[in-house]
Amino acid sequence: MVLARLSLVIAFSQSVYAWSVLPKEAPAPKENPTTPSKVELGKILYFDPRLSIDGTVSCNSCHNVMSNGGDGRPVSVGVKGQRGGRGAPTVWNSGFNTVQFWDGRAASLEDQAKGPLTNPIEMGMTDHALVVERIKMIPGYVELFTKAFGKNDPVTIDNAAKAMAAFERTLVTPNSAFDKFKKGNKKALSDAAKRGMKSVEEIGCTACHSGVNFNGEGLAMGEGNYQKFPQNPGTAYDKKYKFSEDLGRFQVTKNVEDKNMWRVPTWRNVALTAPYFHNGTVQNLDEAVRVMGKTQLDVDLTETQVQDIVAFLNSLTGEFPKMIMPRLPETPGTTLTPNP
Amino acid sequence: MVLARLSLVIAFSQSVYAWSVLPKEAPAPKENPTTPSKVELGKILYFDPRLSIDGTVSCNSCHNVMSNGGDGRPVSVGVKGQRGGRGAPTVWNSGFNTVQFWDGRAASLEDQAKGPLTNPIEMGMTDHALVVERIKMIPGYVELFTKAFGKNDPVTIDNAAKAMAAFERTLVTPNSAFDKFKKGNKKALSDAAKRGMKSVEEIGCTACHSGVNFNGEGLAMGEGNYQKFPQNPGTAYDKKYKFSEDLGRFQVTKNVEDKNMWRVPTWRNVALTAPYFHNGTVQNLDEAVRVMGKTQLDVDLTETQVQDIVAFLNSLTGEFPKMIMPRLPETPGTTLTPNP
Repeated sequence: MVLARLSLVIAFSQSVYAWSVLPKEAPAPKENPTTPSKVELGKILYFDPRLSIDGTVSCNSCHNVMSNGGDGRPVSVGVKGQRGGRGAPTVWNSGFNTVQFWDGRAASLEDQAKGPLTNPIEMGMTDHALVVERIKMIPGYVELFTKAFGKNDPVTIDNAAKAMAAFERTLVTPNSAFDKFKKGNKKALSDAAKRGMKSVEEIGCTACHSGVNFNGEGLAMGEGNYQKFPQNPGTAYDKKYKFSEDLGRFQVTKNVEDKNMWRVPTWRNVALTAPYFHNGTVQNLDEAVRVMGKTQLDVDLTETQVQDIVAFLNSLTGEFPKMIMPRLPETPGTTLTPNP
Repeated sequence: MVLARLSLVIAFSQSVYAWSVLPKEAPAPKENPTTPSKVELGKILYFDPRLSIDGTVSCNSCHNVMSNGGDGRPVSVGVKGQRGGRGAPTVWNSGFNTVQFWDGRAASLEDQAKGPLTNPIEMGMTDHALVVERIKMIPGYVELFTKAFGKNDPVTIDNAAKAMAAFERTLVTPNSAFDKFKKGNKKALSDAAKRGMKSVEEIGCTACHSGVNFNGEGLAMGEGNYQKFPQNPGTAYDKKYKFSEDLGRFQVTKNVEDKNMWRVPTWRNVALTAPYFHNGTVQNLDEAVRVMGKTQLDVDLTETQVQDIVAFLNSLTGEFPKMIMPRLPETPGTTLTPNP
């Protein structure tokens, strides 16, 4: 942690160099090496609404890989039309985050994947045993789990989570204009984007928004880069957008020092992931930039600075890979979600 | 209509010959020839939840092309968790239906596509003007509409419907065991399936379940093959499964003779489209077969007959084509569904 803090200080002084080109695939933990059969299975599970209690909500419902990896809404909608309190973070490049969820309460993608399944306002399964039971009723899944995890009790909630995490680690958007620039193509960024890049360094955004995913550098998996938001509470922005109402990481740890602490979110594809902040109250990126200047660094950005920074943030939109649509395995002659 | 009735009578006497091999693509109307650019656009629209009022429901939410083309539920769930009164008919091979919806109230796929968008309990858009307005706010769509329909006011609700219909006409599942059998491979059907095929002819199911999509033969597009269901009301099945409660086509026409009249549904992929009937009250295919025997033809099927017919119906499961996942065009820096 001391080392991590140190690297953030260094990042502050030489931020451009602390940003890295996005690798093709996110790193996998030793316990769950990425394999084609896990990725294939995880992709199917990810799109399967039968993993929700009434068969209406899949992972993809709120983390849509056909678009920005979120849902474009302030807060997400789960089973029975229930709304949560926070927006859906993008799944794209989430394998580069060292912790997951807005409050970092999951130390890995594997941990994260298990949460929404049994959250009563998300996918609403009563418990993980029900998830496993339902999966086991689908013959095609038993085959796919066996292929991915072997014959010894392959269908478990942990293996389901491993497969989904393996799939998510392939959700990477390389070759943004910034990445091309970083690799040496100096024409890849517009002049405005270059000015914006300089601005975020000078203003100090890069103290937190550093590293390969622009959300922290030099952290081990499971180690979070948490920051207070808003750093300066009580501003007009804070009041208007109700940022302080949600106490963030405090709700997980109950430690007073975690009040209003949040995992630093990525900048990659941020131009596509409106609306902004944990409660999605800010509709537009330019306003999000103004908010960040004021609430975090007490800077009133000029309109030119705002537009330049927006141009730079747009340069972080990557290329979304072509994907084959999964086919969900069937249960001929019956359905698993017969009841309302 | 007289001719259509006549062909049904003929079908009754030579039903096997009245079933045809499924063509590769559904026929398109003169006003809307299928083109690659329409199919491409229609596919994207089909998967776009921004066509619903709060950005949560796409066509694919209830008519899932990653699985059976429906949603596996008794009745579907629209925006705000609202439940409808009928199940989602499969979109697969729907281009071969001569009318659409359970009650046949749309004469074409183009007509059908416009319905759910503004149904308050489905996608919930206030009117078609709002759909068009929202599409026009997405630059990538304006390009795609221009490519598909030319530069002269391309973004209209009729063109959106044409594109979606063009995409749906490509959703065809060829090469079922039955189709292989029909093309001359006599080993493609199991003995049970062959017995079942004979049974449905002898019992009289084929009076209605004839033609390329097993739901009527010799009908022009727009002309419906309607049948009363239950034909024999008041049976134990009728009471148990509440079939008669929904008056079907009567709700559209208000003609007394249309009470409990329904469009004959397809048999293709029927093994995958549980639960069964307009209200989805029957969970399993074998029970659906028993119900049909009793309520429509007043026949108490033996268990062997039921299992043989189920084997035959399973032989009508086709091959689902591999598809590339669409990418939804973006609105950089903002979202179109900011409000709850």
